[in-house]
Amino acid sequence: MPECLVFRVPTRHPADVSGVMDLIASGAVAAAEILAVFGKTEGNGCVNDFTRHLAVIALETALAGALGCTPEAVGARVALVMSGGTEGGLSPHLLVLARRDGAPAADTAALAIGTAFTADFQPEEIGRMAQVEATAAAVGRAMAAAGLDDPEDVHFVQVKCPLLTSARIGEAATRGRTVATHDTYASMGLSRGASALGVALALGEAEGAELSDAAIGTRRDLYSGRASASAGIELMRNEVIVLGNARGWSGPYAIAHRVMRDGIDFLAIQGVLADLGFSMSGQLTPEDSERVVALLAKAEPSHDGLIRGRRHIMNDDSDINATRHARALVGGVAAAAIGRTDLFVSGGAEHQGPDGGGPVAVIARVRT
Amino acid sequence: MPECLVFRVPTRHPADVSGVMDLIASGAVAAAEILAVFGKTEGNGCVNDFTRHLAVIALETALAGALGCTPEAVGARVALVMSGGTEGGLSPHLLVLARRDGAPAADTAALAIGTAFTADFQPEEIGRMAQVEATAAAVGRAMAAAGLDDPEDVHFVQVKCPLLTSARIGEAATRGRTVATHDTYASMGLSRGASALGVALALGEAEGAELSDAAIGTRRDLYSGRASASAGIELMRNEVIVLGNARGWSGPYAIAHRVMRDGIDFLAIQGVLADLGFSMSGQLTPEDSERVVALLAKAEPSHDGLIRGRRHIMNDDSDINATRHARALVGGVAAAAIGRTDLFVSGGAEHQGPDGGGPVAVIARVRT
Amino acid sequence: MPECLVFRVPTRHPADVSGVMDLIASGAVAAAEILAVFGKTEGNGCVNDFTRHLAVIALETALAGALGCTPEAVGARVALVMSGGTEGGLSPHLLVLARRDGAPAADTAALAIGTAFTADFQPEEIGRMAQVEATAAAVGRAMAAAGLDDPEDVHFVQVKCPLLTSARIGEAATRGRTVATHDTYASMGLSRGASALGVALALGEAEGAELSDAAIGTRRDLYSGRASASAGIELMRNEVIVLGNARGWSGPYAIAHRVMRDGIDFLAIQGVLADLGFSMSGQLTPEDSERVVALLAKAEPSHDGLIRGRRHIMNDDSDINATRHARALVGGVAAAAIGRTDLFVSGGAEHQGPDGGGPVAVIARVRT
Amino acid sequence: MPECLVFRVPTRHPADVSGVMDLIASGAVAAAEILAVFGKTEGNGCVNDFTRHLAVIALETALAGALGCTPEAVGARVALVMSGGTEGGLSPHLLVLARRDGAPAADTAALAIGTAFTADFQPEEIGRMAQVEATAAAVGRAMAAAGLDDPEDVHFVQVKCPLLTSARIGEAATRGRTVATHDTYASMGLSRGASALGVALALGEAEGAELSDAAIGTRRDLYSGRASASAGIELMRNEVIVLGNARGWSGPYAIAHRVMRDGIDFLAIQGVLADLGFSMSGQLTPEDSERVVALLAKAEPSHDGLIRGRRHIMNDDSDINATRHARALVGGVAAAAIGRTDLFVSGGAEHQGPDGGGPVAVIARVRT
Repeated sequence: MPECLVFRVPTRHPADVSGVMDLIASGAVAAAEILAVFGKTEGNGCVNDFTRHLAVIALETALAGALGCTPEAVGARVALVMSGGTEGGLSPHLLVLARRDGAPAADTAALAIGTAFTADFQPEEIGRMAQVEATAAAVGRAMAAAGLDDPEDVHFVQVKCPLLTSARIGEAATRGRTVATHDTYASMGLSRGASALGVALALGEAEGAELSDAAIGTRRDLYSGRASASAGIELMRNEVIVLGNARGWSGPYAIAHRVMRDGIDFLAIQGVLADLGFSMSGQLTPEDSERVVALLAKAEPSHDGLIRGRRHIMNDDSDINATRHARALVGGVAAAAIGRTDLFVSGGAEHQGPDGGGPVAVIARVRT
Repeated sequence: MPECLVFRVPTRHPADVSGVMDLIASGAVAAAEILAVFGKTEGNGCVNDFTRHLAVIALETALAGALGCTPEAVGARVALVMSGGTEGGLSPHLLVLARRDGAPAADTAALAIGTAFTADFQPEEIGRMAQVEATAAAVGRAMAAAGLDDPEDVHFVQVKCPLLTSARIGEAATRGRTVATHDTYASMGLSRGASALGVALALGEAEGAELSDAAIGTRRDLYSGRASASAGIELMRNEVIVLGNARGWSGPYAIAHRVMRDGIDFLAIQGVLADLGFSMSGQLTPEDSERVVALLAKAEPSHDGLIRGRRHIMNDDSDINATRHARALVGGVAAAAIGRTDLFVSGGAEHQGPDGGGPVAVIARVRT
Repeated sequence: MPECLVFRVPTRHPADVSGVMDLIASGAVAAAEILAVFGKTEGNGCVNDFTRHLAVIALETALAGALGCTPEAVGARVALVMSGGTEGGLSPHLLVLARRDGAPAADTAALAIGTAFTADFQPEEIGRMAQVEATAAAVGRAMAAAGLDDPEDVHFVQVKCPLLTSARIGEAATRGRTVATHDTYASMGLSRGASALGVALALGEAEGAELSDAAIGTRRDLYSGRASASAGIELMRNEVIVLGNARGWSGPYAIAHRVMRDGIDFLAIQGVLADLGFSMSGQLTPEDSERVVALLAKAEPSHDGLIRGRRHIMNDDSDINATRHARALVGGVAAAAIGRTDLFVSGGAEHQGPDGGGPVAVIARVRT
Repeated sequence: MPECLVFRVPTRHPADVSGVMDLIASGAVAAAEILAVFGKTEGNGCVNDFTRHLAVIALETALAGALGCTPEAVGARVALVMSGGTEGGLSPHLLVLARRDGAPAADTAALAIGTAFTADFQPEEIGRMAQVEATAAAVGRAMAAAGLDDPEDVHFVQVKCPLLTSARIGEAATRGRTVATHDTYASMGLSRGASALGVALALGEAEGAELSDAAIGTRRDLYSGRASASAGIELMRNEVIVLGNARGWSGPYAIAHRVMRDGIDFLAIQGVLADLGFSMSGQLTPEDSERVVALLAKAEPSHDGLIRGRRHIMNDDSDINATRHARALVGGVAAAAIGRTDLFVSGGAEHQGPDGGGPVAVIARVRT
């Protein structure tokens, strides 16, 4: 039977791959088993965040050495999902997700993983239905790879998606194409939103008839409660990683999720922990905190400028981007529950949960 | 008997005094009863944060109208403590603190308040022992005004203190004086640190023999667990407000405090709430949340770059000042406990709690 | 005959009105003669720049004392145009523009000034044709006030205009109105653009038939070569100040302008100086530099991301807003020509000159 | 005879090495001839600017392929000097400096180049005399390599130097060592300052007896008029590149330099251009602009907060670091002279020119 391995590795800087290499050197994981690496890197998480690119290059180079292939070949087989922004107290780290076959048979469902990639997009496809539909198809392929037949068993779908730059917009223009937006920062939101709607479509959370170019970024009532999309300058395709609990998988891990209705929805996080069998008081004990190998959450500012009726300033701040504020906030709320700061809180939750909220999932060791 | 009145008022922008004026117009408080106004304003909380100045001017002008005096006379009698920075989800608001005499006698201790001001400092005194000693003396005067004889009954001491600017440094230089630092941003930390050590001296948390110019900003083992200092460009003196529980005061409010040992010390906040009689699960219910009229906390980055052993990037970020990250983090942790975002989280906790931590106090309605 | 007086006053901080008060105290200008004050303040020049508001409050309060009226009455008669952003080496300062009647008759044209205000706009009017048309009408009234009959004699039209905030957008929504944009930062550009097209309409630089809501912010071929618009949070109307050279005015000053075709169009600035009779080498001599009492320019990033074919990063920078980069650049180029840094370079040149460029005007003492 | 080749290559992002690879593919330069690559990358130029690291990795990987060696071996032989920060209108680009032997003999002096590296520094050596002395020795070796015997013939010395991070400070502490500063941002200035004093020592601009740990960062009267130091997180040694005009070298290029006395010293730049034989009006013609293959300048804020007596806000801005303002300003002034924006303006001019000023050098094609 397959087993989904999960490792959390701290980094000293965006190009620090020593922790991953140590895992491989120790035999904890084989390079060929790695399906995905999620990373929180310490850039601004916005258009000109090159820490994601730097981390990807460093990982591709290091894994190429371990796999005996070219760096390009690494990128083609492993989903490298770097999410910029460690505002507040968030701690830069990597999550290594791997599939090991040949584990002993188990009679319960366990954490399962599947990945799939779209083809490269043209700039004019970003943030539009072409991206929605290609993403939905990729989610289906990733579920099949994970043996997840029922969408209900899917608890988190991470998508890495591209953004527009001035150069890309110009390139499209030379071919006579117009893009979804000329605002490069806004393009990140449209790309994330289109990707999330693709997940919603695949999981049955939205109907195809409701979706259109015009709905992307505007119909906030349409969303996936399990999608997490991060936009980055370093790729032009969508990379999809599906996580769920499936029979036919072995191992000590399980995943659960809830939807945070706003940025301070501490009870949603407690609900996820309860789903995983943790006995909750206010903050996990150090022992329980160690059993949490990953918290994955999305953060975004509410569009009405309010949290439970009280004004926030995220949308009016021209010094710090709104997504940076939102990550800092959700990172603080999540750290209050978990008692640690190496949490994968990603910004920009367009169509990923309700306005101002977003999905939160936890992977924990529930068996020995 | 005197009663300490506490009102929390949202603001729409830094110059918005409509909420305070509404309180006065409705008779909820008389202008002459107001001893202090604490404000969270939405600037960067650093050197060039003029939202504090703007709020002070607006409050002085408005209260002058209500009191029939000049704006300058308002400043001389009311402590206006504007703390810049509403990062993450923090909500800009004002806390109006007033003393009303003639309340019915009570047989329990209740929230008590006293204020005192130092004389204006010279630039060369900021961040040095002259500021420590003048602050300690002012704390003593404020305690006397509040009828707080025992330092143990003091739960929070707010100090508003000045900072150095290029102009002020230059002015001192023309008189042949050197200042504690030429880095204007660093001057905010030294001013806060000297002020906090003044509080520690007054409350018996530090010995005079331990203190010196050299200790300010360096001897992190010396601190007050109840001091909160905010530096601003708009004043040259220290303004001290002491809050505690005293017999001889009436009213429904009580205050409690704990020391957060790091930025994610959720248990410290739960401890404060327990001290005030709240039954805690994870987050206060909406009803209990309403009974919390103020949470006052200090936030700062740890100097070793770690939170519980995991790296944070606050000290290495040249785009967002470290105090801004720290406020966002503590604001998120506090909002997780209280369930609301209009919290007075202030940055820069030099000598205010242990390295990376800080005091947290809550004022709540504990009687009807 | 009337004379247009111009004074340049340095400020130590946004609320520093001491220089203006000194002018009045010395008799250099009477408070009642002041028609407008332009100010460069040191905020970010974007949505949450409260230095403009602070300067306006300080000026209104100070001038109210000098005029013996209320602060509100000052705002009604004097155009206070605060432009945030002193990036690079730009120096915060105020320009006081006044009209003194009874000057000796002169037989040449001299600097002339006229002002006019629109009514307050509704949020839904900002950035739309209602703002264009009201601005054009106000320009006509201001020209009449200045005795400027021929649009060719108009060399600079400054407009101060409002922006959208989350609160204002919400207020419009409560009345069932949609606004031009929900992006508060973008609203500044639309408001400036609509204002500039109003100037273009009034001066015959654009035809009414070309203009529409859809053209605002998109038809970059439509622009005024003499308009300068600054958006601020502190007002809801447009304030218009027209400057030109007119017979019937006396005094030592003249104004000239050119259009910078990009942000490094040093030759345009040299052209303006030549128009005013300066003998140019590379940088004005200190004596000639003193004769320049004001340089007024607009700065904006080119939309194609290029300056003379070379990439700039303004539009892709999520840490520093593009207008901040543009002001810093044009401020450096202008300081290279003039040899001083107290220059009124304002950001956001939508429909104010060609894409990536903008108008530049100089007021200089050309007679004794 | 040797010839110093100079190529200016635009980049589309920090990892873009296509321009350099095109040069090699076309035969314009052989990989083995390249001695140094200077780059302006688009990060913040401060502590957490990872664009420098990204560019270095990309260049090392690409050149390793061309040279048939490992990336580490590239770094050991080629000086890669990435300077972060393209504020204002500065354009990201690379300068490729190469030495080609076997050029035809010439009877005039021509551009000459030499490089040398120090050993890696310990964190506690950064910003102290150990760095000064090792740098001076390296300058001597680089001059010898270039055949530059007379310090008067040296016109520019570029040094790439390390900085302190929280991790490096901690590492030193584990060995019981204290570092020059705990402020990571401040460490960049001390490292640049020590490096520049090393150049001054080597060129006879400062006496060894004047220099001490205490003088670094404080004795602003001590400086080199030809040193340019950039601090980066990606190395622990100093890399030195000396540029001058030497007999015994061939080729069309010459270099000249002047010292800008402040950030708007346009006349200094015009002086350099005059030294190189350009006939100056205000801005170089497009043809002359093409002949300028590199402008190299340092920018820094003056410590008194003034430029020619007028206040700048660089030192009081907590949103944008002072060096970012300074680069934007000097970039604008230099672009005014040269008429292009791909200029190597680097921030932080401690001991590199007088307070608020810095060296400026131009390399131009003066012969065909």
